[in-house]
Amino acid sequence: MRNVKLAATVTLALSMLMGSSAAYADEGMWLFNHPPDKILKQKYQFDANKQWLEHLQKSSVRFNSGGSGSFVSSNGLVMTNHHVGQDSLQKLSPPGKDYIMSGFFAKNASEELKCPDLELNVLMDIEDVTDKVNAAVKPGMSSEEAFKARRAIMNTIEKESLDKTGLRSDVVTLYQGGQYHLYKFKKYTDVRLVFAPEKDIASFGGDPDNFEYPRYDLDICFFRVYENGKAVQPEHFLTWSKAGAGNDELIFVSGHPGNTDRLDTISHLDFLRDVALPGKLRDLYRMEVMLKAYSERSQENTRQAKDELAGVQNSRKARLGMLAALQDPTLVNEKVEAEKAFRDQVMKDAKLKAECGDAWNNIDTTIALYRTVYPDYVLLERGTAFHSQLFDIARTLVRLADENAKPNTDRLREYRESNLDSLKLELFSDAPIYDTLEVAELADSLSWLEQAKGADNEFVKKVLAGKSPHDRAVELVSGSKLKAVALRKQLAEGGQGAIKASTDPLIQLAILVDPQAREVRKTYEEKVEEPLRQSYAKLARAHFAVSGPDAYPDATFTLRLAYGVVKGYEEDGKPMPPWTTLGGAFEHAAAHNNVEPFNLPKRWIEGKDKLTASTPLNFVSTADIIGGNSGSPVVNRKGELVGIIFDGNIQSLALDFAYTEKQARAISVHSSAIKETLEKLYDAKSLADELGTSSSLAQKKNGSH
Amino acid sequence: MRNVKLAATVTLALSMLMGSSAAYADEGMWLFNHPPDKILKQKYQFDANKQWLEHLQKSSVRFNSGGSGSFVSSNGLVMTNHHVGQDSLQKLSPPGKDYIMSGFFAKNASEELKCPDLELNVLMDIEDVTDKVNAAVKPGMSSEEAFKARRAIMNTIEKESLDKTGLRSDVVTLYQGGQYHLYKFKKYTDVRLVFAPEKDIASFGGDPDNFEYPRYDLDICFFRVYENGKAVQPEHFLTWSKAGAGNDELIFVSGHPGNTDRLDTISHLDFLRDVALPGKLRDLYRMEVMLKAYSERSQENTRQAKDELAGVQNSRKARLGMLAALQDPTLVNEKVEAEKAFRDQVMKDAKLKAECGDAWNNIDTTIALYRTVYPDYVLLERGTAFHSQLFDIARTLVRLADENAKPNTDRLREYRESNLDSLKLELFSDAPIYDTLEVAELADSLSWLEQAKGADNEFVKKVLAGKSPHDRAVELVSGSKLKAVALRKQLAEGGQGAIKASTDPLIQLAILVDPQAREVRKTYEEKVEEPLRQSYAKLARAHFAVSGPDAYPDATFTLRLAYGVVKGYEEDGKPMPPWTTLGGAFEHAAAHNNVEPFNLPKRWIEGKDKLTASTPLNFVSTADIIGGNSGSPVVNRKGELVGIIFDGNIQSLALDFAYTEKQARAISVHSSAIKETLEKLYDAKSLADELGTSSSLAQKKNGSH
Repeated sequence: MRNVKLAATVTLALSMLMGSSAAYADEGMWLFNHPPDKILKQKYQFDANKQWLEHLQKSSVRFNSGGSGSFVSSNGLVMTNHHVGQDSLQKLSPPGKDYIMSGFFAKNASEELKCPDLELNVLMDIEDVTDKVNAAVKPGMSSEEAFKARRAIMNTIEKESLDKTGLRSDVVTLYQGGQYHLYKFKKYTDVRLVFAPEKDIASFGGDPDNFEYPRYDLDICFFRVYENGKAVQPEHFLTWSKAGAGNDELIFVSGHPGNTDRLDTISHLDFLRDVALPGKLRDLYRMEVMLKAYSERSQENTRQAKDELAGVQNSRKARLGMLAALQDPTLVNEKVEAEKAFRDQVMKDAKLKAECGDAWNNIDTTIALYRTVYPDYVLLERGTAFHSQLFDIARTLVRLADENAKPNTDRLREYRESNLDSLKLELFSDAPIYDTLEVAELADSLSWLEQAKGADNEFVKKVLAGKSPHDRAVELVSGSKLKAVALRKQLAEGGQGAIKASTDPLIQLAILVDPQAREVRKTYEEKVEEPLRQSYAKLARAHFAVSGPDAYPDATFTLRLAYGVVKGYEEDGKPMPPWTTLGGAFEHAAAHNNVEPFNLPKRWIEGKDKLTASTPLNFVSTADIIGGNSGSPVVNRKGELVGIIFDGNIQSLALDFAYTEKQARAISVHSSAIKETLEKLYDAKSLADELGTSSSLAQKKNGSH
Repeated sequence: MRNVKLAATVTLALSMLMGSSAAYADEGMWLFNHPPDKILKQKYQFDANKQWLEHLQKSSVRFNSGGSGSFVSSNGLVMTNHHVGQDSLQKLSPPGKDYIMSGFFAKNASEELKCPDLELNVLMDIEDVTDKVNAAVKPGMSSEEAFKARRAIMNTIEKESLDKTGLRSDVVTLYQGGQYHLYKFKKYTDVRLVFAPEKDIASFGGDPDNFEYPRYDLDICFFRVYENGKAVQPEHFLTWSKAGAGNDELIFVSGHPGNTDRLDTISHLDFLRDVALPGKLRDLYRMEVMLKAYSERSQENTRQAKDELAGVQNSRKARLGMLAALQDPTLVNEKVEAEKAFRDQVMKDAKLKAECGDAWNNIDTTIALYRTVYPDYVLLERGTAFHSQLFDIARTLVRLADENAKPNTDRLREYRESNLDSLKLELFSDAPIYDTLEVAELADSLSWLEQAKGADNEFVKKVLAGKSPHDRAVELVSGSKLKAVALRKQLAEGGQGAIKASTDPLIQLAILVDPQAREVRKTYEEKVEEPLRQSYAKLARAHFAVSGPDAYPDATFTLRLAYGVVKGYEEDGKPMPPWTTLGGAFEHAAAHNNVEPFNLPKRWIEGKDKLTASTPLNFVSTADIIGGNSGSPVVNRKGELVGIIFDGNIQSLALDFAYTEKQARAISVHSSAIKETLEKLYDAKSLADELGTSSSLAQKKNGSH
C-alpha cells in the first residue's frame, strides 16, 4: 500500500521499438496533455475526448503527504485511502485517542477535524516549457554552470507563473530530462477529516496481506475541503456508478504515481540493485525493528509510532519486491536485450549516433561516481543520520534563513519563492511530536552515523560532542524548544541573525551539519543529477526519433492517466478471481482464527448479518500504477467512479522496471462495498447519499454552513 | 536472556594492575581449578574448600544447545531456564501443539518426552595441558605450520583422553591462548522433558522486558536425565534452600558463560565496534523482520519460527547493548587508559618488553587483515549466505566425508574423533524441518549473498544457477531429500563415494560452496586466529608477570564460578529493589493493560488468590555473568540452591568488555517462587517435593524404571 508499486513497459524502449502496430498492452502512465487517445480508440473503441479528460483531471486530487484522491461530491468531499489519510489520523489523535484504530465519523460539519498540515492540489493546467528551460542552458557550460542555470530558470518560471495565476506552479522534469512541463495547481490547505473506518478493516490482513491478493480491505477515508471557512464547491467531481465495474470492463485510473525506473539504463539498474535498494533495505530493517521494539513497550508508544511503523513496513515490502525483480535474471535479461536493440538502432543512424551515441557511456561514468557519493548523500542530506522530526525542523529553519538571503534564482529548489507557502505549512504544523520517540529515533540514527563513518571520524566526533549516541540524543531532544511553533515562527522571521543567536542545541547541530550536507548535495546535483539529466535527455530524443512521439515518461508524482480492464489472473495454476466479496472477508478472518492482523472490527463481526455477502469488496485490474497512486479514483467509460486504487499485488512490484499484464494487477476497493458498508455498518447514510451527488439538501446542511 | 551478557573487569588489565590489596569488586568468571579462594576469604570470610567446590562443580550441568543448569534431585532431575529448554520445546511440539506457549508437565515418567538432540555435560575433571600444546608448536614455525601443529596436538590429546576415560574431552583455549586446559565431561544424551510453564509467564514482558529490571519471569524448565533407560542417580545434586537468598547475602553462580571480550586490545575492540557488531546487527535486523513477516502469515508459521525468532530478538538486543557500550566514550576511555598503563609497565621491563612488547602491534596488524577477511568468513563459513537447516546438514555430510578420510590430527576441529558422537547427535536429529520456513530463510539469505558479493560475481552466479534467489531456494528445498534421517545416515556411512554420487541438490550446492568456504576459513585460522592467539598468549604472560597469578580468563562456555551479593541499585535517581514479588507480576500486567507481551497465562489470572503476593519472584545480584549463564544455579554459602540465573539488566550488557557493579546486575528466579507456583498453580506437588531431595519414594516411583 501507499508506496503501491505497480505498472508499465518491458519497457518504453521495447514497446516503442516494436512500433505502434503491435497489439498494445494496457501499459502506461500517460500525461493528460499527451493522452493515449489513439491506442484507446484502436484497442477499446473509446474516445478520450478533451471534455472527458478535463473532467477527470479536475476531479482528481493530489495529497501532498504522498497519495491520490478525488472530489466525490459537489460539496468538497474528497475520497482517498485510509492509509493515505493515516498521516492525518495520527496527527489528529490526541493522547488517549487513536483514530487510526478506532476510525472516525463527523456526523456534521462542526465535528469535522482540521488537519494540521495537509495540502491538496488539483491540476488546472499544463504548459510545455522545455524550450525555455533548455535555452537557459548554453552549449559549453560546465556541469556546475548548467545545473545552476537550469535551477535558476525553473525557479523563475515558477515564480512568474505563481505571480500571474495565483496557482501553485511546479516545473516538472519528464523523461528523466527530455522535457519540462509547467504544472499549475489549485491548492487547498483547509482540509478536514470526515470519515475513516477502523484500521482493522482498512488494512485487514496487515503486513502479511499487504501487496497480496485476494484481498479484503475497506481502505478508504473521506475529507472535506474548505476555503474561507466554507466547503469548496468544485467545478468537477465524480459521480458514483450504480453497479460498479464488471468483469473485463474497461476502466481508467487518474492519479499520481510517485516514481518508476523504466527508462533507466542497465548500469543505472545495476546501481539500484547493488547499492540503492540494499542500502535502503538496511535502513528500513533497522528502523522497523527499532519502531517495533519502541511500540511494544506500551500502548501509548504503539499509538505514537503507528503511522510511521506502517510506512516503514510498507516501504520494506515494496523494496524487497523491487530488489527481487532486479535479482530475477528473466527481467534483467529482457532489459539488457531491449537496451542493446535500442542502442544498435541509434548507432546505425549517423545523425542520431552523433547526437546521442555517447549517452550510455556517460551514464555509466556518472553512475560509477554516484556509487561513491551515495552513502554520504543518503546519510547527511537525506538525513538517515538524523532521524528526528525536531532535527528536520531545525535544519529547515537554518536553511530557510540562508536561502532567503539569496535571490530566488540561486536557492535550493525547495526554498524557491513559489514553494515557500507549502514549506511553511509543514514547518509550522502543530502536529504532536513525542520526546521519547524522538530520542529513540535520534539515538538509533546517531549510532548508525557512527557505524557508517567510523567513531574516529572528526565530523562524527563533533556531532556526538563526546557523548554516546543515546546520551547525545537525550541532550538534544530534552534541550530543544522547537516543539513550540511560536519559536519556529520567530526564528523563521528572524532570519540569519536569529539563527546565529539561537542557543537551541538542535539549531546548533543543524548549523554544524549543514556545510557537509550541502557539500555532498552540491556534488550530487552537479556531478550526478545534471549529467544524468543531460544524457537521459539525449536518450529521450533518440527514443522519440526512433519510435515517434507516443510514449509516456517515468512517474513523477504528477497526474497521469492509466487504463486497463477488470481481470483475474492465474497463480501457481490457481485462478485468482477478478473480485472478492464482503462475505469473503469473514471467511478470510475465520481461516486465520481471527488472530491479529486477521481480526475484523467488532462492528463488522456484530453487523455481519446486515451485509449482503455477495457484494464485491476489492477487485483487480490491468491498469498501470505504482506507489503514489494510492487513493486514485477508478472510473468507467462514462467517467463514473467504480472504485479506488489502494494497492498492487506482489507481482506488480516488479513493474517499477517493466510492465507486464500477465499477473501484475492493481487492487481497488469496489464502489459498491463503500456505499453498502457506510449505510449498513457505519450509520453514515448521509455520507453515503452524498457520494457522487450534487447539491442534495442534506449534504448542504451537513457540509457547509 | 539466553545470550545473557553480564559481567567482569574494567578489566582484567586494570584490576590486576591495581594489585591485590585494592578492595575487590564482585568480579570474575573464575576457573574451578583456580578459584578466587583468597578473595572470598578476605572479603567474605568464606572458605571455598575443595569439597564445597567439587560438589558445586559436579552438580552443575552444561546444556550444549547453549545454556547452563544443575542437578536438583537424586533422581536425575535437571533445572534450567524455559528459554534454554525452548529449543527442545520447539522440536518436541508436533503440528497442532505448541509446548513453548502451553507449557508441559509429565505427571509420571511415561509422559516425559525424549529430546531429539539435546546433549548435557557435567564437568568431571580439568587438566592443564598448556605445556603439551605449546611444545608441539616449535619456534620458527610459520603461522600456517603453527596452526596445524596446534590443531593436531589438540585433536590428539582429546582422542587419547576419550579413549582412556570414556569422557567427552575438550582442550579449552584460555586467556585467548595463554593457557590450554583439558576438560573432561560426563555426557548425557537421553534427556527428557518433565516440566515447562507457559511462555507468557516464562518470558513475561517479552522483548520489551528482556534485559530489563524490575522483572517478573518464571523462566524455568525441568528435564530428567536417563542412562540405559533409567533415571540417572547423580553423585552430586543441589539441595533446596528453605528461605532463598536474603538482601546483601553472599551467593555463588556456577555456570557456563559463553564469551567475553575483556582482554581484547583497543584495536580489537575497535574492530568489534566498527565491523563485527554492525555486521551482526545488520544480519539480525534482516532475519528478525523476515521471521516476523513469516510468523504473521499464520498461527502455524508463528509456531514454527517461535524459538528462532526469540533467539534472534534476544541476540539483537544483546548486540545493541554491546555496541552502545563500545560507542560510549566513558567505557572506551577507561579501556584505553588501562591498556596504556599496562603497556607502559611492560615496556619499562626489559625482559618483558623483549618477550611481549611486540604483541600490540602484531594484534593491530592481524586485526587490519581480519577486517578484510571478515565479510567472506561470515558469509561463507559461518553461513549467513545459506540460512537453512537442510544446507547445514548437507554441508556437514560433505565435510564429514572429506574429514573422515584424513587422519584425526589433520581434521577440522569439529570433525575430530573425540567430537564425532556429539556431531552425529545433531546431524541425525529427527527434529522437524519446515519447508516453507526453509524456503523463506534460504531465499532471503541467497538474496543477501547476491547483494554482498554482487550479481556479477562468478561464485554467486554458480550458486544461483541462473535463477532468482527465491526460485533457487524453492528448487533446492523442494528437490532435497535430506529431511529423511535414514538418507543422512546412508550418506554419512557411504563416505566420499556416496557424496560424490548424490544427486541431492543441497549436497551438490554444499560441494560447490565448500572450496571457497574452506579457503576463507583457512585464511581466518592461519592468518587471524593463530597470530592473535600467539600475541594474546604473550599478553597473558605479561599480565601474570606484572600482576601475579590471580586472574580469570575471558569466558569460553566452560564451567566458571562467580560470586556476589543480592543487592538492588539506583537508576535515574530511583531505587531498584533487590527482588520483585508474585504480586508484582499482576501489577506489572495491569500497568500494561494485560496487552501482549504483558499478558499473564489464564492459569495465573484464575489462580491469583492461591498465591502469596509477597513471595519473592526475581532477584538481582552483583555476580559476574554473561550469555550462556542462563540456567546457572545460584547457591548460598551452604551450597543450597536459592535461585536460577535467567538474565542480566540492560546495564549489564556493557560487561562483555568490563565489569562494574554500580548498576550491572544478574537477574535470577527466586527459589521460593518456583516451589510455590509448582505447588499452588501447576498441580505439580510431586515435582515440587522432589526439588533438592534424595530418594523420596514418590520420586523413585515416578522418575526411574
